[in-house]
Amino acid sequence: MHPDLPIGIFDSGVGGLTVYRALHEKLPDEHFVYLGDTARVPYGTKSLATVERYAVENARFLAAHGIKLLVVACNTASALALPAIRENVRVPVVGVIEPGARAAVAKVTERDRSSVGVIATEATVKSGAYRRAIKSLAASVEVIERACPLFVALAEEGWAETDVAHAVAAEYLQDLQNNRVGALVLGCTHYPILRRVIQETVGADVQLIDSGEATAASVAELLEREGLKRTSGREEDSLHSDAPPRRLCDDLDHFYVTDAAERFARVAERFLGSAPSVLEAVEVWGHDELHAKK
Amino acid sequence: MHPDLPIGIFDSGVGGLTVYRALHEKLPDEHFVYLGDTARVPYGTKSLATVERYAVENARFLAAHGIKLLVVACNTASALALPAIRENVRVPVVGVIEPGARAAVAKVTERDRSSVGVIATEATVKSGAYRRAIKSLAASVEVIERACPLFVALAEEGWAETDVAHAVAAEYLQDLQNNRVGALVLGCTHYPILRRVIQETVGADVQLIDSGEATAASVAELLEREGLKRTSGREEDSLHSDAPPRRLCDDLDHFYVTDAAERFARVAERFLGSAPSVLEAVEVWGHDELHAKK
Repeated sequence: MHPDLPIGIFDSGVGGLTVYRALHEKLPDEHFVYLGDTARVPYGTKSLATVERYAVENARFLAAHGIKLLVVACNTASALALPAIRENVRVPVVGVIEPGARAAVAKVTERDRSSVGVIATEATVKSGAYRRAIKSLAASVEVIERACPLFVALAEEGWAETDVAHAVAAEYLQDLQNNRVGALVLGCTHYPILRRVIQETVGADVQLIDSGEATAASVAELLEREGLKRTSGREEDSLHSDAPPRRLCDDLDHFYVTDAAERFARVAERFLGSAPSVLEAVEVWGHDELHAKK
Repeated sequence: MHPDLPIGIFDSGVGGLTVYRALHEKLPDEHFVYLGDTARVPYGTKSLATVERYAVENARFLAAHGIKLLVVACNTASALALPAIRENVRVPVVGVIEPGARAAVAKVTERDRSSVGVIATEATVKSGAYRRAIKSLAASVEVIERACPLFVALAEEGWAETDVAHAVAAEYLQDLQNNRVGALVLGCTHYPILRRVIQETVGADVQLIDSGEATAASVAELLEREGLKRTSGREEDSLHSDAPPRRLCDDLDHFYVTDAAERFARVAERFLGSAPSVLEAVEVWGHDELHAKK
């Protein structure tokens, strides 16, 4: 695996752009290929078999484009489909659940609290993936999980700062407002968009865990450990040390969607402040053995 | 086409159950086969090409099951894909846009108002299908369209009667609260679930048009005109004239979903008061020429 290859990221749609942003900030020398499965979004209300099938198709698409590492930005796909993805691609695969769980456990331990809250999609909560990951790190920690489906619609609608968002957050998060909750995992890539209203609702004393940021830290460690950090371009950079840092969504990062590129660009602009320079609509499903097996 | 064959209904998911209910009430002697494309829901944020592909696959699945008539309950599929569906199946196809537009125009004419409001998904609004259908019936009527994506999430969450629903409705419907709007089309199958909060927001003076009810009336006329009304079982019924009317979701109506049957049953219970007796998860996509063409 060559260090100069890009890092692949996939999500069920636009939400994974928050993970892309975290990776871009943590690893400014890396290039990224992002796939948003907008033709089949959302995954959070779908079954295990369907999420697995979609996730494997996405992973293969990115693997075929030449990547050195795959980040599964989607919490639902990370919760349900990591084993299936790992069976189907040869590059290292990093999901968002494990890093998020680790960051949450570190926080509650550090602050001597007994509980972690997890907010996520229906499918992620039902899978119990965060609960298992947290319990395997700290068996005594209590895990309080809550599905918050309306948060996705609020984030996509651009209503993050509205009274409606506050009312929805109050409804979903009322069980979590006790002071034994040391950390609250934002277990869906859309939720960091609502970070402010979530923080105001649960109180400043609860530490919010953005799985995207925790994942970026894990990816940085893994690249270092495996000798996969991007190196070329460094010499040129030192010649131009006054060059501004790379912009989000510049033409070194390639974006693919399975549908409705225009809508993706619009929402990306709302999430990141700029729309992708390189954005293409593609099909990731095909006539392969995965279909034949069914 | 035999009159005893069932009527096919498809929707992108659970929302079309409101159309099923309207058809069942209007045509208690008919049997129904319902398909909810829950593996690929929602359609309202997807592109024309994708909605067409999904709609044609659904239509073919139902046609292969032996139906005498196909009702496209999904507004987005009706707005974008009726021509493609009609090219691909041999039975008469009824969408929800035309009946809804006709009912709205009748109301504004009767009440001497100048405007019709239409609330629908992003894709339906963007297609301009309701605007065209209304203008072709009454060119002078003004059409005010508004996409209301959060309504779907509210309906599915069972939050139809909450303060949050009122706040969301107030935000979406503020432009429609002038008294020249004679009728407001509920242009998404989920919206009838929120009928009460929508009515309270726009005021009792605005007539709400449920496309499902308007479509049931159109289907009844078409069956009568084409001699396709179900007749067998009538004699038996008359022998048991004290028999109670058929229940919604009894075992004469068959339900198929493309994913997550359990979730469908749960939401169906919330929408209809009872879950389907016969419910099966199926795949509707295949290796046919539709894929090969791409």
